[in-house]
Amino acid sequence: MLRFASLLACLLSLTAVSLSSATSVEPAPTLDWTQVAPGVWKAVVGQAEDFSFLSLRAEPVRVEALAELGDASPTLTLGDVRGQARAGVASIRLPLGPEERLYGLGSQFKHLGLRGRVYHLRVDHAHDGGKLPGSTHAPVPFYVSSRGYGVFIDSAREMSFYAGVGNRKDSTGNPPERDRTTDRGWQAVPTSDAVEASVKASGFTVYVFAGPTPLEAVRRYNLFQGGGCLPPLWGLGFWHRLPTAATAEQVITEVAEFRARRIPLDVIGLEPGWQSHAYPCSHAWDEGRFPDPAGLLEELADSGVRVNLWENPYVSTNSPYHDDITDYTASHLVWLGEIPDLLLPQARATIANWHATEHLDIGVSGYKVDEVDGFDQWLWPDHADFPSGTTAEQMRQTYGVQWQKLLYELFASRDERTYGLVRASNAGANPLPFVLYNDNYDHREFLNAVGSCGISGVLWTPELRSAGDHEEWVRRTQTTCLSPIAQLNGWASRTKPWSFPEGTDAVREAIDLRMRLLPYLYSVFAAYYFEGTPPFRPVVLDDSWWERPGGAAGTGDPDLAQPKPLFAEVSDQYFLGPHLLIAPILAGTSERTVILPRGEWYDFATGEALGGSKTIEVKPALNQVPIFVRAGAVVPLLAETCPNTGAIIEGKLPLEIRCYGDAPGHFDLFEDDGHSWGVKRGEYRLTRLHWTGQTLRSESLHEGAPPLFGERRLRRMDGE
Amino acid sequence: MLRFASLLACLLSLTAVSLSSATSVEPAPTLDWTQVAPGVWKAVVGQAEDFSFLSLRAEPVRVEALAELGDASPTLTLGDVRGQARAGVASIRLPLGPEERLYGLGSQFKHLGLRGRVYHLRVDHAHDGGKLPGSTHAPVPFYVSSRGYGVFIDSAREMSFYAGVGNRKDSTGNPPERDRTTDRGWQAVPTSDAVEASVKASGFTVYVFAGPTPLEAVRRYNLFQGGGCLPPLWGLGFWHRLPTAATAEQVITEVAEFRARRIPLDVIGLEPGWQSHAYPCSHAWDEGRFPDPAGLLEELADSGVRVNLWENPYVSTNSPYHDDITDYTASHLVWLGEIPDLLLPQARATIANWHATEHLDIGVSGYKVDEVDGFDQWLWPDHADFPSGTTAEQMRQTYGVQWQKLLYELFASRDERTYGLVRASNAGANPLPFVLYNDNYDHREFLNAVGSCGISGVLWTPELRSAGDHEEWVRRTQTTCLSPIAQLNGWASRTKPWSFPEGTDAVREAIDLRMRLLPYLYSVFAAYYFEGTPPFRPVVLDDSWWERPGGAAGTGDPDLAQPKPLFAEVSDQYFLGPHLLIAPILAGTSERTVILPRGEWYDFATGEALGGSKTIEVKPALNQVPIFVRAGAVVPLLAETCPNTGAIIEGKLPLEIRCYGDAPGHFDLFEDDGHSWGVKRGEYRLTRLHWTGQTLRSESLHEGAPPLFGERRLRRMDGE
Repeated sequence: MLRFASLLACLLSLTAVSLSSATSVEPAPTLDWTQVAPGVWKAVVGQAEDFSFLSLRAEPVRVEALAELGDASPTLTLGDVRGQARAGVASIRLPLGPEERLYGLGSQFKHLGLRGRVYHLRVDHAHDGGKLPGSTHAPVPFYVSSRGYGVFIDSAREMSFYAGVGNRKDSTGNPPERDRTTDRGWQAVPTSDAVEASVKASGFTVYVFAGPTPLEAVRRYNLFQGGGCLPPLWGLGFWHRLPTAATAEQVITEVAEFRARRIPLDVIGLEPGWQSHAYPCSHAWDEGRFPDPAGLLEELADSGVRVNLWENPYVSTNSPYHDDITDYTASHLVWLGEIPDLLLPQARATIANWHATEHLDIGVSGYKVDEVDGFDQWLWPDHADFPSGTTAEQMRQTYGVQWQKLLYELFASRDERTYGLVRASNAGANPLPFVLYNDNYDHREFLNAVGSCGISGVLWTPELRSAGDHEEWVRRTQTTCLSPIAQLNGWASRTKPWSFPEGTDAVREAIDLRMRLLPYLYSVFAAYYFEGTPPFRPVVLDDSWWERPGGAAGTGDPDLAQPKPLFAEVSDQYFLGPHLLIAPILAGTSERTVILPRGEWYDFATGEALGGSKTIEVKPALNQVPIFVRAGAVVPLLAETCPNTGAIIEGKLPLEIRCYGDAPGHFDLFEDDGHSWGVKRGEYRLTRLHWTGQTLRSESLHEGAPPLFGERRLRRMDGE
Repeated sequence: MLRFASLLACLLSLTAVSLSSATSVEPAPTLDWTQVAPGVWKAVVGQAEDFSFLSLRAEPVRVEALAELGDASPTLTLGDVRGQARAGVASIRLPLGPEERLYGLGSQFKHLGLRGRVYHLRVDHAHDGGKLPGSTHAPVPFYVSSRGYGVFIDSAREMSFYAGVGNRKDSTGNPPERDRTTDRGWQAVPTSDAVEASVKASGFTVYVFAGPTPLEAVRRYNLFQGGGCLPPLWGLGFWHRLPTAATAEQVITEVAEFRARRIPLDVIGLEPGWQSHAYPCSHAWDEGRFPDPAGLLEELADSGVRVNLWENPYVSTNSPYHDDITDYTASHLVWLGEIPDLLLPQARATIANWHATEHLDIGVSGYKVDEVDGFDQWLWPDHADFPSGTTAEQMRQTYGVQWQKLLYELFASRDERTYGLVRASNAGANPLPFVLYNDNYDHREFLNAVGSCGISGVLWTPELRSAGDHEEWVRRTQTTCLSPIAQLNGWASRTKPWSFPEGTDAVREAIDLRMRLLPYLYSVFAAYYFEGTPPFRPVVLDDSWWERPGGAAGTGDPDLAQPKPLFAEVSDQYFLGPHLLIAPILAGTSERTVILPRGEWYDFATGEALGGSKTIEVKPALNQVPIFVRAGAVVPLLAETCPNTGAIIEGKLPLEIRCYGDAPGHFDLFEDDGHSWGVKRGEYRLTRLHWTGQTLRSESLHEGAPPLFGERRLRRMDGE
């Protein structure tokens, strides 16, 4: 008897909490959906917070462009989406088909496909090359499905995202249980019939974007966020960053070296040493190394070279404007520097005025905003206080966006476009002309990032820093030259394009190719700006990667609109604009496999017809990078390279219009003054270049500005 | 004019949030401290939550033992501690001296010293061997300082812990700013004058434990949590786990093999295949592999062998008790199994009754509770609902503790002690007799874990699983035999102690040493139970590691009580009880460096005097493990090995009392019946063995039970 009495006592030895009686564990309720734009639906879970990505949006929803894209039904069954806010956690559950693929969530280094993993979306520098899924430079809470819809969760909180992981007890779509000991079909991670996501907050808003293709869902998302960014023409030229302690004299010498070696150069980047104090920053010129910054910038401008300034946001007590901003900074410091609360107009005004009068007035063209992505000890803790009252967590998730927006608006107020770099971004940065980079230097992961960023409205550059030998140097140069910013960052390594003499000719060739591609690349960015079409995108956003049985996509019938991938989700090749498939050779290798998807494909350089729906092996010479072109492609190039984009603007340089194959196709060539916001006032020129398969024909779509380029020469690429 | 007008417009283009006006960013308030026990202070930050580690405590505060330890002032200045709860985040800031060292936060694999890193305390399986500081099997929010105080933050939330990282703007203790470009003294992580910690919750309670040494602070913490655990004697023998699909017949054969090869064996562990369904679990015997479990256990008991059952908590629909528990399980599944909400008495009763009638009644001695530590997809999401209303986050942090407590109380209700394994633990588990293990298999990191766990009231076993060759097999066996559970886990590898024939003699020797050490080891655990002194502890908890200038420790004067470490914080050697310093040889090596701290040290095996305050190189034979003994040490061993602990209980085996050096010393020998809770009723025997330097003398401290061991023979270890 004693035994059972004491067992009972044990079970009844209840603490306060264990007195709880069971509450029902019911499915969360369904949501109320509203259509807010053609092809865009919205619902709220719990009590959405005032501060979110959309509250920071720098450009309004591109209503007209969305209308032009037309209405469409989502292939997601909105009535099956459930959400709740309970005990401080707001969550959502979205249905997921067994064959559905998921892509997105911002900058990814390891994979394209999301399914089967859990992501913790948190701004972070992704140390170890992405071992923490979702902790990354741009943890954008947007994804697209292979079934052709997109989902954006507008919460600037850290988000747990279960991409087809997690089974509910009350789900009808769970696989059968299996015994691990005896059943070989046992699954370590059982298939789930849902995406689930949650934040520790009162609620959030969720948006669903129709397709019918994933690319169209991405376009709608980009347009909803204000459209893609439009860099100035010079931003797409070649960039070179000097060693951190370089002096004005060394800058001039370096620029002369580029010219002497016939290496194109548009932008010189100055690293921390341009400042009198850095880490934390004065944001003021160092009088020793830069005694006459205005004179330097004038001299550089005469050479057609612009200046980009490195900075991090953390204000030194040695900064001349420290005393003006100190009342508007956070409780904590980063590298002992104060953290401006950019949600306060006083902080924004102080920083904007300083940058305007000290930098922009003398010709600075843009910034590289560093250290807004730190892991733990490199940023502020979640318990830091900001004087605007916004939480430290929300500040971490958006601080990179806030800086981009401030600088973007500062240039816009002068009717100038800018282009720069930033270490952290997030949702809503779509129209902001900044490119992500990091300390990681894994060539393979860089390629993954170039493609994956294209899903989420951000851009990635695999910047060039150093190399073990000339082969690596060339291969890395080729990759950076086929990315959003073609940059050599020698801040620590002191490398130059000619640092590996055996490779210098191939390096020059890669940069020359970049310059020749500018008419195409610039137009591709214009399509990002106007239509939301990402300039760099992963293979899975291209229709040629998919088989669509029954052609039923877009009918809204989820059973019919189930595309199947024709190939694996490779991330070592990606699309640049509508026509070019880039398959870089990785450092340390000399050959590779390339998947040519559905359709007919041609060698970019020779026009050789290669077929499609197949895998090929390529082993290009060191100076060659494998680029493939779709049948019917029209690719406008400069007829020859040029020393910088100033030469284009001054010289009306002639174009070589390459046309591939004998299928019809077209390309929209964008022209404007290359730097102003005239484009917003209609001051641009859009020309559709039609290739009939035999002849080239121009159709003017918009004629609000004089041509940027000179005469156009057709070059038919028929492999002969 | 246009330019500045539009700049102004830009700065005033305010979103809803940016209309915020600045609020003051003030230091958090100081706290109200109450002394709650001798040497223990308490304060509350914000609104502490009802559910916390202390609300789960399985044993009451050991008030008498705390009183015996005496009162002492904390060397932490309580008046300088600040805390606040604001915008959903509760945080604390504790002052930190420039030379102060910090240790603790539970199971650590990479370091002992915490300072300079940020920890995210979250129950997790620490994949990649601990790349995520704080995400680990036992993320205990308790730390000790080299200045001799301990701090425990009682919140079962994920906690961000900044161990001397993070500078506040208003701090007076920040180092001076330096310019990174020009100043070589620039610090990547500036020194901070505080520990900061935070949770996303309404608040928490904080406790401070006085020293004056770190070990005494740890002892107070352990006693406050109910004291250390006391395993049954059999728990300290040798354990062997069978392959997962082993049958009853194979178990019997295996036990016979141990006997035939003269390998001691106390516990057989059955892995998933003892169950009819596993992952998720039926918790019911498989009738095919185990047709007569009661008969099997009886037969094993006759051989002096006990049975430990593997299980994970996730209930299969095939479990006979599934229908009784399904109303008391969570919204989500783990491996498609239901998650019992152990905070509900109905769930506890169902599980306890099942285990009692199906397992304990036929003689099962304990459990290995697996899979309560999963990373993301291996557990439930933070948005899962539990019917008790407790958050999924708090459930994750405590679920391993809840299972330990349930099983502990179940055995206690039968007046039996148990000993088992668990993959996750946390604060408050101090009296719970479960040892942590994991999938990691890094020998070096295992050693770090053995030591680090000793700071935080948990235990770690570097279990033996497989090896590349006989040398690795021997070295790993030696380590597990000098850890809290000496276990070979061949569940997947099918290895046996004799699997590497060249090493079998050395393996047997290591296990024999374990058996011979039992009188010492059992007594060392009794000191854990009675006095809170951790049986396995890192070098930094030993006074011999420190220099205490001025002898002012314990005076409460923080300027005086600033001990300095004599050596680096090595974690590849650790203390077992008061006298033994263990320095295992790592797999793949044959020699190593050992630090002999302050005092005189002797070779355990030979008694050779080695000196102290120095570093030595050792290169032992394969069958030798370097163990060092303090001057004055009294180490009771069995005179000979034995086949299992049953032989001790039946045979009153004689002891060899080893005494080292000619300095005086003592050791408290604990004896009881080896398995019951008679110890709580005073039914035990405690004998102080005094070594004068020349002679051995016994002093009876408590005499509530007959002796467990037989005659005592002095063996003076003088190296001759």
